[in-house]
Amino acid sequence: MADLGFIGLGVMGGRMVKRLLDAGHSVTGYNRTKSKAQWLLDLGMRWAETPRAVAEASAITFSMIADTKALNAITQGVDGVLAGLSTGKIYVDMSTVSPAAIREIAQQAEAKGAQMLDAPVSGSAITLDEGKLSFMVAGKRETFEKVQPILLAIGPKATHVGANGLAAAMKVATNLSLAVQMLAFSEGILLAEKSGIPRATAAEVLFNSVMASPMVKYRGPFVLKMPDEALFDVNMMQKDLLLALEMGRQLDVPLPTTAVTNEMLTTARAMGFAEKDFAVIFEALARMAGIKTGVVE
Amino acid sequence: MADLGFIGLGVMGGRMVKRLLDAGHSVTGYNRTKSKAQWLLDLGMRWAETPRAVAEASAITFSMIADTKALNAITQGVDGVLAGLSTGKIYVDMSTVSPAAIREIAQQAEAKGAQMLDAPVSGSAITLDEGKLSFMVAGKRETFEKVQPILLAIGPKATHVGANGLAAAMKVATNLSLAVQMLAFSEGILLAEKSGIPRATAAEVLFNSVMASPMVKYRGPFVLKMPDEALFDVNMMQKDLLLALEMGRQLDVPLPTTAVTNEMLTTARAMGFAEKDFAVIFEALARMAGIKTGVVE
Amino acid sequence: MADLGFIGLGVMGGRMVKRLLDAGHSVTGYNRTKSKAQWLLDLGMRWAETPRAVAEASAITFSMIADTKALNAITQGVDGVLAGLSTGKIYVDMSTVSPAAIREIAQQAEAKGAQMLDAPVSGSAITLDEGKLSFMVAGKRETFEKVQPILLAIGPKATHVGANGLAAAMKVATNLSLAVQMLAFSEGILLAEKSGIPRATAAEVLFNSVMASPMVKYRGPFVLKMPDEALFDVNMMQKDLLLALEMGRQLDVPLPTTAVTNEMLTTARAMGFAEKDFAVIFEALARMAGIKTGVVE
Amino acid sequence: MADLGFIGLGVMGGRMVKRLLDAGHSVTGYNRTKSKAQWLLDLGMRWAETPRAVAEASAITFSMIADTKALNAITQGVDGVLAGLSTGKIYVDMSTVSPAAIREIAQQAEAKGAQMLDAPVSGSAITLDEGKLSFMVAGKRETFEKVQPILLAIGPKATHVGANGLAAAMKVATNLSLAVQMLAFSEGILLAEKSGIPRATAAEVLFNSVMASPMVKYRGPFVLKMPDEALFDVNMMQKDLLLALEMGRQLDVPLPTTAVTNEMLTTARAMGFAEKDFAVIFEALARMAGIKTGVVE
Repeated sequence: MADLGFIGLGVMGGRMVKRLLDAGHSVTGYNRTKSKAQWLLDLGMRWAETPRAVAEASAITFSMIADTKALNAITQGVDGVLAGLSTGKIYVDMSTVSPAAIREIAQQAEAKGAQMLDAPVSGSAITLDEGKLSFMVAGKRETFEKVQPILLAIGPKATHVGANGLAAAMKVATNLSLAVQMLAFSEGILLAEKSGIPRATAAEVLFNSVMASPMVKYRGPFVLKMPDEALFDVNMMQKDLLLALEMGRQLDVPLPTTAVTNEMLTTARAMGFAEKDFAVIFEALARMAGIKTGVVE
Repeated sequence: MADLGFIGLGVMGGRMVKRLLDAGHSVTGYNRTKSKAQWLLDLGMRWAETPRAVAEASAITFSMIADTKALNAITQGVDGVLAGLSTGKIYVDMSTVSPAAIREIAQQAEAKGAQMLDAPVSGSAITLDEGKLSFMVAGKRETFEKVQPILLAIGPKATHVGANGLAAAMKVATNLSLAVQMLAFSEGILLAEKSGIPRATAAEVLFNSVMASPMVKYRGPFVLKMPDEALFDVNMMQKDLLLALEMGRQLDVPLPTTAVTNEMLTTARAMGFAEKDFAVIFEALARMAGIKTGVVE
Repeated sequence: MADLGFIGLGVMGGRMVKRLLDAGHSVTGYNRTKSKAQWLLDLGMRWAETPRAVAEASAITFSMIADTKALNAITQGVDGVLAGLSTGKIYVDMSTVSPAAIREIAQQAEAKGAQMLDAPVSGSAITLDEGKLSFMVAGKRETFEKVQPILLAIGPKATHVGANGLAAAMKVATNLSLAVQMLAFSEGILLAEKSGIPRATAAEVLFNSVMASPMVKYRGPFVLKMPDEALFDVNMMQKDLLLALEMGRQLDVPLPTTAVTNEMLTTARAMGFAEKDFAVIFEALARMAGIKTGVVE
Repeated sequence: MADLGFIGLGVMGGRMVKRLLDAGHSVTGYNRTKSKAQWLLDLGMRWAETPRAVAEASAITFSMIADTKALNAITQGVDGVLAGLSTGKIYVDMSTVSPAAIREIAQQAEAKGAQMLDAPVSGSAITLDEGKLSFMVAGKRETFEKVQPILLAIGPKATHVGANGLAAAMKVATNLSLAVQMLAFSEGILLAEKSGIPRATAAEVLFNSVMASPMVKYRGPFVLKMPDEALFDVNMMQKDLLLALEMGRQLDVPLPTTAVTNEMLTTARAMGFAEKDFAVIFEALARMAGIKTGVVE
């Protein structure tokens, strides 16, 4: 069992640490708001006062944070992860951030004799709870092989996709399908509903059909009842689609469904749904179809 | 165990009869080409010389045929199913045909004291083999309840959606997602591939992600190797999208991803891929992205 | 000067007859509601009691009616145009109707020794008043050459495009641009307006720019004030886009902007604007952008 | 007649100076490559060695350059326009550059007691030659009123749209229509061509129809013969569409036709047409329709 570090103990990160502890690993954790980590301390996690202290105490340090800005905040400066890295240590970021930021931090880690991996996940807290979270991982293959057994304590599948930054790219290539699938699902539900099939019945049929991806299964029910808190909101999803569209332009890949879906996210935002789960794209389409669904006020 | 009839013993129908026989049912079958049914006769299926004879011999008669034209061919005329129906018998069509045709035949069946259900399926022969085929069923609820146990011998889920014709509508609402998901999947694969991730690796990551619907899992590998025979070809998929778009206009439901995907199917057809599995939409998009993938000549 | 006949004396037809009379032609007219033609009778037009009587009295008979159904009503039966045609006579339909209907009537006309042309127009009553109406004409070239001088009394340009039915096809290929241009214009106006430029100022700039087609110039002002009566309503425009999309599928031509615009017309209809001028697509887009423009109640 | 300055004497700028000289103005010019300005010197234009020297010699200095980077190059530093501005002088930039860059330079100009206008144009060299170029102008109204008579020596229409930067925004809102109109025009041409109408005939009909904007009239013929040199290439047009899409997201304006057209420009670029006039979108669509048009090799 390894000495592990973990920075960012929110909805996703906290659950991951729980799994690592359950698997018998020793974990040193840090979170901006310590009180949110109390349940993990009760389970045996050790506390460190800074990201640097986490890295100093650990052979492998993980992070799971909100965005590129937060990544810079925890890695740079005297209290940052980089200051705590030294020869042989490994740093694994699981967040969805820009490939360019990843590449820069990976170089900084190597300058200290350490190695970095970018290892974003596919799935939500629901997926994680079901034990089905998958990882796409980028960086040196030998580093990947060292970290892989630990990732498998969190979720069943980790795939090495290439050099640093490519996992971030792969994540973007994955996420575009989530938004598009949700919009196509909404088109189907509205067609059925306006035909005279109750919405819940139509949803049940789709959940049992071959179009029912895990995402459709956990997010689809939101068309019947929107969650109080977004799993992934319109702003966050649009951020990912913009990364996809930017990549598409740089790499000369036309993205017809992504482009159309992105405009629907803009529509959702214009209707005031920026911070709702992106399943609210259903409500936006319903209003275009002349009805209000009742799932948002 | 019931006396069942089955008309249309092709790739889907044949496998269904096998399951019904395995479940202990007695089945009388008919197929245009008798030789294709020999394996079922070897398994104990009885033969009838006409659709009418099937219906006469059976309490419940099923059919699984290609399209609305074939449906008319097996139901009408002196040798048709309708001529063999009488009070208390049930006729269940599982094909994907027009709601209007369903409604007309249902009325003709009722005029003879019989009942009809439309019960299209979600899934392919692969889904059926995995024991995961689902049914959407329309017609009288009491009739549905009589037939449901038999459908569950074929696949694990049958959902009653309403009056005759609505299952056909629900099928269209389901199928639009298949085409859209395949196109979004292709966008992701091409983004990853042009980023530098091998196509097979990108596909593996997506198959393990939350966007991997059963359809993506069985059709996605076609971007690595197209099948010799289409599971569902571009022409057939476009026929379903046209039904969706027509419903959208009649019911005032905008269908942004369906409309865009339909144009890509037109593109695929214009490139000569009309009779390829609709996964070939990947090749069409790849050519728009300036590359040939090598999966079709 | 020729003996001309004219069937359908509405907004467009009536103005056309006025121009023919002004040019010195003798015109015999017929309209379902005679009272609407009084002003033309006052100007010297003769009256006939049936379409057949018009054709009998005229060397060249024109018609300008609503749709394919109306075309059949005026051409078929004992009182129809066809019954009045004989060797050497010419029948010219200027309506926007299906190419198939045109081809059938053209054959019927030829069977009587007569010739037919399809000659749909580009433009509205406003274009006609400005003396800028153009014609696309199909049928035998020699017939076209006989009729051309008369068409030029109505508008400045008549182009022969090929065999019967092709002018109807060309009309569809023209009209798709009208809807698409109106939507792109609306996108520009809304971008400008939300940037802080007054809508009327933005419109003025666009009217003076190189994107200002004649259609944009006469329909664009509707984003400031919708007309009481539609020049061309959402239903009519969508009928034309459907013809375009159908042609696209038959001929394997992908139509990305047409498909997307068609869904916006569906959106407009779902919002209750089916019978508004299709400029109301601006209001539909504005609502998707979270604002009400005030141009419709 | 005023003492004017002009920086950037290329295809557009050179023609503008010619018009200003023809109108009797005195003009001092600067161009990175002096030899290209010889014809204007022959017509009486004075030469200055730096942008600063132009501004020092002139009451009103104009610039017409490629992009934001070039704008910074001519305005900043010891030899830049700003160094030559002083109380009462006016600087007018006519390029298509970012609104943010405009606002910053306008502030720098005001700090020196001068005023700035952004005054981008609608139209190409062809439009300019026809005397039909229009301006959208932003900045203080009183400054606009001083400059307006001079702009009218170049083109017939100048519209004041608001504060600095808004003319740049208006330009973007205008240009999106150019790309969308060209794609819709291509859809119409291909529908007609595949119906059996010769392409040149179809184009002639469209040029005489109400969809024929000035842009369609001068760029449309490129579908018959592509120009040796692009009027405005795919890269430049896509740069403008990206500005539009970015504004759309910031202002919450869905842009369905812009988004779809942008993906077609990506397609054109992927096919190797990045530096062709954006009319080449016709060829890209034609290839999607399974044909090669012969207008590009």
